[in-house]
Amino acid sequence: MTDPLKLAGLTFTSRLFLGTGGIDSHVTLTEVIATSGTQLVTVAMRRVDPQATGSILDVIDAAGVTVLPNTAGCFTAEQAVRTAHLAREALDTPLIKLEVIGDEDTLLPDVVELLAAATRLVDDGFAVLPYTTDDSVLAARLADVGCAAVMPLAAPIGSGLGLQNPHNLALIRQTVDIPVICDAGIGTASDAAAAMELGIDAVLVASAVTRADRPPLMAAAMRDAVTAGRAAYRAGRIPARHHAVASSPTTGLAAL
Amino acid sequence: MTDPLKLAGLTFTSRLFLGTGGIDSHVTLTEVIATSGTQLVTVAMRRVDPQATGSILDVIDAAGVTVLPNTAGCFTAEQAVRTAHLAREALDTPLIKLEVIGDEDTLLPDVVELLAAATRLVDDGFAVLPYTTDDSVLAARLADVGCAAVMPLAAPIGSGLGLQNPHNLALIRQTVDIPVICDAGIGTASDAAAAMELGIDAVLVASAVTRADRPPLMAAAMRDAVTAGRAAYRAGRIPARHHAVASSPTTGLAAL
Amino acid sequence: MTDPLKLAGLTFTSRLFLGTGGIDSHVTLTEVIATSGTQLVTVAMRRVDPQATGSILDVIDAAGVTVLPNTAGCFTAEQAVRTAHLAREALDTPLIKLEVIGDEDTLLPDVVELLAAATRLVDDGFAVLPYTTDDSVLAARLADVGCAAVMPLAAPIGSGLGLQNPHNLALIRQTVDIPVICDAGIGTASDAAAAMELGIDAVLVASAVTRADRPPLMAAAMRDAVTAGRAAYRAGRIPARHHAVASSPTTGLAAL
Amino acid sequence: MTDPLKLAGLTFTSRLFLGTGGIDSHVTLTEVIATSGTQLVTVAMRRVDPQATGSILDVIDAAGVTVLPNTAGCFTAEQAVRTAHLAREALDTPLIKLEVIGDEDTLLPDVVELLAAATRLVDDGFAVLPYTTDDSVLAARLADVGCAAVMPLAAPIGSGLGLQNPHNLALIRQTVDIPVICDAGIGTASDAAAAMELGIDAVLVASAVTRADRPPLMAAAMRDAVTAGRAAYRAGRIPARHHAVASSPTTGLAAL
Repeated sequence: MTDPLKLAGLTFTSRLFLGTGGIDSHVTLTEVIATSGTQLVTVAMRRVDPQATGSILDVIDAAGVTVLPNTAGCFTAEQAVRTAHLAREALDTPLIKLEVIGDEDTLLPDVVELLAAATRLVDDGFAVLPYTTDDSVLAARLADVGCAAVMPLAAPIGSGLGLQNPHNLALIRQTVDIPVICDAGIGTASDAAAAMELGIDAVLVASAVTRADRPPLMAAAMRDAVTAGRAAYRAGRIPARHHAVASSPTTGLAAL
Repeated sequence: MTDPLKLAGLTFTSRLFLGTGGIDSHVTLTEVIATSGTQLVTVAMRRVDPQATGSILDVIDAAGVTVLPNTAGCFTAEQAVRTAHLAREALDTPLIKLEVIGDEDTLLPDVVELLAAATRLVDDGFAVLPYTTDDSVLAARLADVGCAAVMPLAAPIGSGLGLQNPHNLALIRQTVDIPVICDAGIGTASDAAAAMELGIDAVLVASAVTRADRPPLMAAAMRDAVTAGRAAYRAGRIPARHHAVASSPTTGLAAL
Repeated sequence: MTDPLKLAGLTFTSRLFLGTGGIDSHVTLTEVIATSGTQLVTVAMRRVDPQATGSILDVIDAAGVTVLPNTAGCFTAEQAVRTAHLAREALDTPLIKLEVIGDEDTLLPDVVELLAAATRLVDDGFAVLPYTTDDSVLAARLADVGCAAVMPLAAPIGSGLGLQNPHNLALIRQTVDIPVICDAGIGTASDAAAAMELGIDAVLVASAVTRADRPPLMAAAMRDAVTAGRAAYRAGRIPARHHAVASSPTTGLAAL
Repeated sequence: MTDPLKLAGLTFTSRLFLGTGGIDSHVTLTEVIATSGTQLVTVAMRRVDPQATGSILDVIDAAGVTVLPNTAGCFTAEQAVRTAHLAREALDTPLIKLEVIGDEDTLLPDVVELLAAATRLVDDGFAVLPYTTDDSVLAARLADVGCAAVMPLAAPIGSGLGLQNPHNLALIRQTVDIPVICDAGIGTASDAAAAMELGIDAVLVASAVTRADRPPLMAAAMRDAVTAGRAAYRAGRIPARHHAVASSPTTGLAAL
């Protein structure tokens, strides 16, 4: 019953990815990585100093999981491309989670700059994972230029609103042939399960875990929720119907 | 990190209960019990012959889990009370899941007959677990007459509609001091997780597992979803907010 | 295109009923009745003195609309029955909106006491309109004992949460042959329209109008929303579908 | 209490716009325009022959309402720009509803081509109203290049799914200073009211009216729904709250 995720030439048995924004300490991060069972952690390159010892990168390294540098905090294609190159040099990885933010308040992506940056980074040999809106036409464009995956949002970063438009996420899954990773907006475990039930390939959570009252316990909840949602998707759920069907039919009852 | 459920003098480490309606074979039932990790399975007494060998009761017995007889198919308090007594004699258990159905099409409970039957069965020494609507005032009445738990529906039996009124389930949880078990209407894993996130004590599923394309896999999904939802509830989720909060704040960025 | 509502032997061309709880002055009430176009206003008998001049009853009388006394504030069948009789004597009307509250915090109905009171009041010759939960089995019982209508809630009184369980309201509409009036929980105009689109016969609003920033304007909004929802129901809406259908098909396009 | 909409130098007292796709006859169109009270009707230029007599354009002209040509059926900026120019020559209007479709099945917009076309058409002196996704960052870009309004979708064209992401529509309304017109996806009256309650400036419907069982009645429903939703927005709705507030408080009750 193995069901691995192949992404950018790598293979993952966990479909839960973790962001580190909002984490309160390296100790908590170590615990959270352990209880989540994640095999991939993303880090904002504009927030770490790869030269420094004892940084968040060391914690990730010690945990033995893959690091996914990201371009959080970049507002133009230019900035994002430059940050990606710095990340590749510092971390010796072709992987880049591409964020190009269009609005400081909502942190929503700027899809025009995003597509431009993605095109250039693919040309430069990166495995590009763009954080994008839930627009399936744009997702197809990102796939067309050679992205390794698309990472549509469920809701704005840090909002915890859950799946605001599951129809759009399902549409993206139907539209592209590359992995679809739900990024941003997950608030709690059932959101992560519901995302996976759409056939999405993986879920990335940050604030939902790092800012929960008990991050390690929420990380465990997310681990189980992602597993549950994936299994439910593969198990083939019953259709929802307004007219109830008795689980115990009323014909053939024993007489009283 | 143990978090057992105490119910009617028993202790359960699994918070997932299973109904057998719709199961296609004893083999599947055995598998489903195993992958679900459940410790309590409910059976419609009007559908089994406790004297017969090789019945569904033997399967449950062989699995080593608690059996919870139910009064499915009863339309009056009188019928339900009689069925409960037959169940106690046959199975030697004080537990009874009390169903008194008010409508053959929707299988929704008749709360007037339900309350009457519950009152009499408590008097007769049963540990009564009534299948009820999501009405918190009625739940308080059922608790007042001495029920061991209340089992409000998420949606009509077999509908798979999920949590139609989470507010009402949360209200019941706040109102009564006995266990609250979500019964009926769960369609898929995220529904079960979402129910547990309300603080509900356990979830019972039947059709969602037994009628799924792959029941054992869906049973495993439900196991993980219930665990995930419980952990998320205990972990203290982040609030949902329209104004996003960056998981990686935009102040203090490294210069580019 | 007339589409009158027949209720308790009366005929209404407006399907919007008004509650007075929360109104800040008699002047506002007069305005609100006028802009709402309502022909029926309900008043809590335990809050008015029918003997006093200048009471809310005079305002309703001056507006030329039907008064519907209600038993708000009653917690037992006994209290409600007594209040109904006092109302009939004072106002010389057989109409009674029957409220029997089961919980002081949520003001949710106590359906056991409600059914008992309804039965007695029907026997006593009243035209009984019970405020009830969204339970279709109970609604059928209320119809069976001879109620003139049922008034299920959309959500708790004063909550403004809107239709928490549209499926249940639709089920009540399919189940009983008497008018179904959505009572309590409406927050804004679209809620009222959505209720009417279910085939419900009328909507009663109180707080949503009386506690709005501008009650007369909200009353006008509710008037139009109820009209709109009723018309949409009768007009036969398009089905919702995930696969879009072009309103302008893409075949047969002019060449460019 | 006048509350006119100013758009592209024109003033409208009706905030309901109409699309003609799916209309079954010129007679129905005439009726629908009349009962809707609309003052603006959009027509797909690639579907009409402006030279022919007795075309849909004559019906709109006879009704005395503004015609808004659109570029439905265009899949590139190039096609859309050419269609817009043909429309301006034929109809002598600077108005253009700009559609650049990215996917034949869903008819979702291609935002990259859309922004390119919008930029060129603004330069060419058009009053551009782009049909767009519910992306507030893109809406800001469209406003920045000089569009006269933005027309985000509620859901895919013809789907009738209603407001799939009200949060995003509200965000667009907060972000741009030009009119926001909800375009596509409205299924019934309450959807239109709910859109207006977000503070959106106008709603455009096509299939929801033209494909309803009774288009003229649905057009009247939409007229009232838009009026209701706008009034509710301006009236200041009560907040939604889980803890009910009695519309008739329980203190100060008359004794029984």
